[in-house]
Amino acid sequence: MHAEALQSRFETIRSNKLFETFVITVIVFSALLVGAKTYDIPQPFSTIALLLDWFISFFFLTEITIRFMAEPRKRDFFKSFWNWFDTVIVVVSMIPADNTDLAVIGRLVRVFRVLRMISFIPELRILLVSLVKALPQLGYVMLLMFIIFYIYAAIGSTLFESINPTLWGDISISLLTLFRVMTFEDWTDVMYETMAVYPLSWVFYLSFIFFTAFAFLNMVIGIVVNVMEQENAKARAAEAEQNHEPTLADIMQEIQQLKARLPADKAVSEPKR
Amino acid sequence: MHAEALQSRFETIRSNKLFETFVITVIVFSALLVGAKTYDIPQPFSTIALLLDWFISFFFLTEITIRFMAEPRKRDFFKSFWNWFDTVIVVVSMIPADNTDLAVIGRLVRVFRVLRMISFIPELRILLVSLVKALPQLGYVMLLMFIIFYIYAAIGSTLFESINPTLWGDISISLLTLFRVMTFEDWTDVMYETMAVYPLSWVFYLSFIFFTAFAFLNMVIGIVVNVMEQENAKARAAEAEQNHEPTLADIMQEIQQLKARLPADKAVSEPKR
Amino acid sequence: MHAEALQSRFETIRSNKLFETFVITVIVFSALLVGAKTYDIPQPFSTIALLLDWFISFFFLTEITIRFMAEPRKRDFFKSFWNWFDTVIVVVSMIPADNTDLAVIGRLVRVFRVLRMISFIPELRILLVSLVKALPQLGYVMLLMFIIFYIYAAIGSTLFESINPTLWGDISISLLTLFRVMTFEDWTDVMYETMAVYPLSWVFYLSFIFFTAFAFLNMVIGIVVNVMEQENAKARAAEAEQNHEPTLADIMQEIQQLKARLPADKAVSEPKR
Amino acid sequence: MHAEALQSRFETIRSNKLFETFVITVIVFSALLVGAKTYDIPQPFSTIALLLDWFISFFFLTEITIRFMAEPRKRDFFKSFWNWFDTVIVVVSMIPADNTDLAVIGRLVRVFRVLRMISFIPELRILLVSLVKALPQLGYVMLLMFIIFYIYAAIGSTLFESINPTLWGDISISLLTLFRVMTFEDWTDVMYETMAVYPLSWVFYLSFIFFTAFAFLNMVIGIVVNVMEQENAKARAAEAEQNHEPTLADIMQEIQQLKARLPADKAVSEPKR
Repeated sequence: MHAEALQSRFETIRSNKLFETFVITVIVFSALLVGAKTYDIPQPFSTIALLLDWFISFFFLTEITIRFMAEPRKRDFFKSFWNWFDTVIVVVSMIPADNTDLAVIGRLVRVFRVLRMISFIPELRILLVSLVKALPQLGYVMLLMFIIFYIYAAIGSTLFESINPTLWGDISISLLTLFRVMTFEDWTDVMYETMAVYPLSWVFYLSFIFFTAFAFLNMVIGIVVNVMEQENAKARAAEAEQNHEPTLADIMQEIQQLKARLPADKAVSEPKR
Repeated sequence: MHAEALQSRFETIRSNKLFETFVITVIVFSALLVGAKTYDIPQPFSTIALLLDWFISFFFLTEITIRFMAEPRKRDFFKSFWNWFDTVIVVVSMIPADNTDLAVIGRLVRVFRVLRMISFIPELRILLVSLVKALPQLGYVMLLMFIIFYIYAAIGSTLFESINPTLWGDISISLLTLFRVMTFEDWTDVMYETMAVYPLSWVFYLSFIFFTAFAFLNMVIGIVVNVMEQENAKARAAEAEQNHEPTLADIMQEIQQLKARLPADKAVSEPKR
Repeated sequence: MHAEALQSRFETIRSNKLFETFVITVIVFSALLVGAKTYDIPQPFSTIALLLDWFISFFFLTEITIRFMAEPRKRDFFKSFWNWFDTVIVVVSMIPADNTDLAVIGRLVRVFRVLRMISFIPELRILLVSLVKALPQLGYVMLLMFIIFYIYAAIGSTLFESINPTLWGDISISLLTLFRVMTFEDWTDVMYETMAVYPLSWVFYLSFIFFTAFAFLNMVIGIVVNVMEQENAKARAAEAEQNHEPTLADIMQEIQQLKARLPADKAVSEPKR
Repeated sequence: MHAEALQSRFETIRSNKLFETFVITVIVFSALLVGAKTYDIPQPFSTIALLLDWFISFFFLTEITIRFMAEPRKRDFFKSFWNWFDTVIVVVSMIPADNTDLAVIGRLVRVFRVLRMISFIPELRILLVSLVKALPQLGYVMLLMFIIFYIYAAIGSTLFESINPTLWGDISISLLTLFRVMTFEDWTDVMYETMAVYPLSWVFYLSFIFFTAFAFLNMVIGIVVNVMEQENAKARAAEAEQNHEPTLADIMQEIQQLKARLPADKAVSEPKR
């Protein structure tokens, strides 16, 4: 009984509008603090920043605890992906980073607190979920693209390694170089260098650009078609739902009922058509 | 009574086709003058340009005054965004800029007179309004994009500051560098530099390009879907409006009225279906 | 009578399949000749090329003459844009270019013979016409884009002229530089240069990129929407044409005729609905 | 009778799930081996790689033989494009490459074994087929684009050859340079160089970018429209199939049948409309 009273009290806090606003303020503030620390800040502010850091860590821990305590069934808390997401970020960002070696890691980890903005704003959560959902359906186009990259990288590192090992040393460096070519970033420099040895190597680059552009176009069209299908389905469902408009099948049924009521003896005079 | 007569006279001037043509000619001319002044012009022309400038300023002021006087209710004048827009441009561009310090500002301010072209051509006004209207609905994608940028900028300025402070000195410089990476502008130079210290830093750049490209794609799709929905809604509305075509519901009602008129005793022979 | 017989004989030649194939072969051959002349060719071939050139010129002239003679009413020949197009190309490419000064112009003019390929292949003609038709509807977006360019160029050449006159010397050079910035071609070099003097000048570049990207997006969407509308209209028209499917209005009319035939005395029992 | 028993045994092997999984594992493994060989590998591993190579060659040959033997009618084996595809890859990749001259070719040829991944995964096969199918319908846009490229390349190599023979030496080099300009890769460097001699040559580059961008846009729209049409047709067909919904024509027929049963004497009271 006592535990339940406590739980409902925590629930009241969690759903308090003021509490929510305060949490989001602290998240934004922690983001600003992360940004501020990238500037050269004089000593006194540095100490303040450290204190603020500990306050934020403590506050986030408290907030997660409140949300955990507010859950009627403790198990359900861990069923939500976003609770896991928040808990991991908060716990990881509390790693003490006093000695200089870990100081950088400590600072990096705190950067991810900014991600809590996503878990807190429902619209961003929806966006992220839709991004993740779009990935698998693009899977095969990506696999095809990877095969194209892999073959060209293998050819590239076989033929061009002796020309420029920095760009074509092994297959992983070649993959990076090909990605560079795909973004058109100084790709002619890469090409002119190999064309000095193999004058026909422009075929390699142009065919690669052509294939990847084509696969990319395919990917974009895949997404557009998919989005359109979803939109159309949604539109049709919404229309059917809202208007309560009879379907053609309903009308057909009505007419047939009508017909059944009429004397059948006139059927001879049916239109020839 | 006298004021009203004056107002209607101003209204006649304002709606005069010749007056409108003359205003637009002066706007185009002021744009050309702004362009001409960027060339090295000899002294006599310079003086002429100054005179023309004063003439244009005076003319625009007169024109605004006429439009203000032509308004039956003076209050309504300030209810239109475009009247404010014009008035602010005209008033600001009249700032005297005789001494050398303000000369540049004076010239810059006159550039914005070209913007009056937008307020004068209705089609451009519609375009601008549609641009502004499209912004808020893209808000969340932009927020997501900013969060991605912010996190990567924080990581970048933490890890890479010592490598190249010009590119990664603090979070705002890092944001600019990341924007550069997003436009693929010599991004491999930035990457190779950090890869010399952290060989795995290509993960940083590739994941960043991947995320921003994805968010960007999402944005474009968002706009396309939105545009399509509006188009479909418009098309349906236009169809319903113009054709006066009955809906399926109308037809259903008619059939049911028909049914009601028929003898019900035949109902037994309804189709099983 | 004699002239008419001649005309019909020319018409027979014109519509001869073999003649058409021969004309297209000569067009392709003239294109290859233009390409071949860009290589360093030894003297004997050079003379052959000159002879071939004269043969092609003569052949094209003959062909145009045949087409002109084949026209029943000579006036109609000049009503077709493509006849004008061909005639101008053929006539212009016959300009003698013996002396060295005009030699380059003579060679350039012959390049345009390749364009005759477009006038000869109907599918290319349709493509070109659709390109030209798409231009005016994009007019206002282009005007808006030009205004954006013009204002930024005026600001750029006012503020940055002293920094780098090669890029910002006057408004026309500035327009070219801004086009370069829009294509992201080494735009950061341009920006870093001005940021050394005006540290806030990144606002200039980023806002410019943002505005032009937005206007460009608008343009693309405009085209897509337009294409979709045309496609939908075409689809609907084709459907209505082929299926001879009755409209809802037709059905409504039929039902009302039906209703009129039924006794009206039962109208009291209409469904409440 | 004996041959038939053998064939059905081979068919059992071919359709064995375990066999399929093993084949795909060997394909992936051969891809990894190709990648591994681009690194500097010490001698013992090099020998192992050679042995593995021979094992893979032998395995693929066996697998193709099994598939050939499993075919009831041997002729049908060569009717499938993918069987040809696999056989050619396997046979070609068996070319012995012991002497140093052919070693590189031997390695290159083995790279193409990775392509067998496409023939083995049905989804990738569908993707590739759809890519190939999309090509011809883009044919005319591509022809138009090639004509644009050809004309500009001819002009470029005529005018700019003396300025920079590396970029504008002959028509094929010029085509490559124009492709570079189309990808915006350091295109301003190319332009500034020719503008030093012909100050108006920016017209050449800007009009080229404009035309190719336009043709490209046309191509993309062509694909999108095509995809949409297919999607719409598919959607309509699916709808008609699944719902068994009556068409408007069906309803019209029903009503007319109904009308025929009713006494015609009331026809006088038809609505005027």
